[in-house]
Amino acid sequence: MKVLKESGKKTYAPISVINWTNEEGARFPPGCMSSAVWSHNLELDYALSCTDTADNVTTIGSELQRIGYAGSKEVSHKTNPLSAHFEIHIEQGTRLEEAGLDVGVVDGGQGMRWYNVTFQGVTRHTDTTAMAGRQDALVGAAKAILEVERIGKEYGGMATVSLFKSSPQNFCNIPSEVNFSFSMQHPSSDTLSEMTSSIESYIRSTAATSNLEVTAYDNVWTFEPFSFDSQAVQCVEDAAKADGFSYKRLISHTGHDSIYTNFAVPTAMVFTPCKDGISHSPLEYASPKDCRIGAQVVLGAVLRYDEVLRKKFG
Amino acid sequence: MKVLKESGKKTYAPISVINWTNEEGARFPPGCMSSAVWSHNLELDYALSCTDTADNVTTIGSELQRIGYAGSKEVSHKTNPLSAHFEIHIEQGTRLEEAGLDVGVVDGGQGMRWYNVTFQGVTRHTDTTAMAGRQDALVGAAKAILEVERIGKEYGGMATVSLFKSSPQNFCNIPSEVNFSFSMQHPSSDTLSEMTSSIESYIRSTAATSNLEVTAYDNVWTFEPFSFDSQAVQCVEDAAKADGFSYKRLISHTGHDSIYTNFAVPTAMVFTPCKDGISHSPLEYASPKDCRIGAQVVLGAVLRYDEVLRKKFG
Repeated sequence: MKVLKESGKKTYAPISVINWTNEEGARFPPGCMSSAVWSHNLELDYALSCTDTADNVTTIGSELQRIGYAGSKEVSHKTNPLSAHFEIHIEQGTRLEEAGLDVGVVDGGQGMRWYNVTFQGVTRHTDTTAMAGRQDALVGAAKAILEVERIGKEYGGMATVSLFKSSPQNFCNIPSEVNFSFSMQHPSSDTLSEMTSSIESYIRSTAATSNLEVTAYDNVWTFEPFSFDSQAVQCVEDAAKADGFSYKRLISHTGHDSIYTNFAVPTAMVFTPCKDGISHSPLEYASPKDCRIGAQVVLGAVLRYDEVLRKKFG
Repeated sequence: MKVLKESGKKTYAPISVINWTNEEGARFPPGCMSSAVWSHNLELDYALSCTDTADNVTTIGSELQRIGYAGSKEVSHKTNPLSAHFEIHIEQGTRLEEAGLDVGVVDGGQGMRWYNVTFQGVTRHTDTTAMAGRQDALVGAAKAILEVERIGKEYGGMATVSLFKSSPQNFCNIPSEVNFSFSMQHPSSDTLSEMTSSIESYIRSTAATSNLEVTAYDNVWTFEPFSFDSQAVQCVEDAAKADGFSYKRLISHTGHDSIYTNFAVPTAMVFTPCKDGISHSPLEYASPKDCRIGAQVVLGAVLRYDEVLRKKFG
């Protein structure tokens, strides 16, 4: 924005920078919450009622009120519209780094599904209850963890058990309840469906043979594989090319606010390389040079798309 | 005590009822804490510094001060002695129930070992990190859970993972740290040692092949198989027999304060049947009739042992 202003360049459309609320969804799943509401993919009331993963009680709505961040403007692309949406992000993978490229032109993304499961068994004394006939929820959940990992490998996608809570937390009690969440990612919708049904049937049959009840099996989030707007993607590619940066087209492996804005307006993304592909870790790192290149490509893409708008409506 | 008083019976030794502090050890492991200190099996300072399993910070010493239960008398069988110790407990198993017996004469117990383990991996983004090369601490811990269970079954003892904490608790993060505890029980000390070394070598080799570090592997508690004092056990058996109750001798499968008092003074226990062998559960139940029979046998055993003392010292 500073470069744009200092250049004296007059754009056709006003340019704004958006910091979407709760992109990560770490404390209040699901992530990309406000872009999902804005693009009419999530009901506002439902979003505001989503609860803290630590206590399952505190809502994001009440926390936004408490810190004074609850806005008054309607969260809708109809009443608060954009002409297009461009986003920059680290790749969170090693495709650019391994190919030695400056920047990634993101033209789509893989599908994702998130599930939440609860196994209910019966707690008994660890020292006096014979192994046969136990209803140990932690043993059932351990089998599920390994199967989720196996399915991720078998189908060439990703599958991970992440959130995990076991109770009671007592040395002398067999665990009777485990609540865990898992997510799956794959570029093919059909494969994702196969992974989903394989894991579900494994979890249900394991529960049956382990004398456990599946008291919750909820689909928390589903996102189908998608493509970004071809004209917006072309603007990113042209910007990279014009400035002489090396690049390639690639898909996003995870969720971003852009996957929701893409439902409402032309959208594309720019990826920058990041060290060893690491993200969601204190080791995450993108060099100042790569960040500068990425920002320059976003600016070039925005200006190119602004020309598209000027030609169309100006 | 009421029956004894009302009967006008004058015992040789004074009789006291003891409610040992922190028998269960649920919030502040290890259990049987005060009887362990009293019998010189645990240092008082160490016991008072044991921390809450929920926050790993609050000590039992500070909590006893806070609620006004920190006593002033020395916790030692030397300065605060007993002549003998008799304890009543539900069996927490099904041996009496299945045999249709009134009461159990406990003449010893199986050995027990408790361990605490931490796996350290590396957290990365669940959606963008390829399955190969992950350092997922939860996957490593899942393998350990299943191996602990397998070892318990293979050796005809018990082995259970109970306390279990995974972090970070976030949908989009691969778990990087899991801390878990497991316990093992077996009547043979040699078998218990085999179980211990099998599990440890499995955990260490699994960590190595899964690119995880074992940052903690601590023996929290060890208790060897033991026998109660033969004269005290005989007093329990004679009391059961004299009142015409059906009984059998059996071992205890878990820890009780008596296993510590047994180091310092003649000790024996009385077991009463309990419904379906269930304990450490809201379903735990012992009938009033069985409780009455058990209490009567304890009284008979105490009076018989009192006669032993009278003959010896009186």
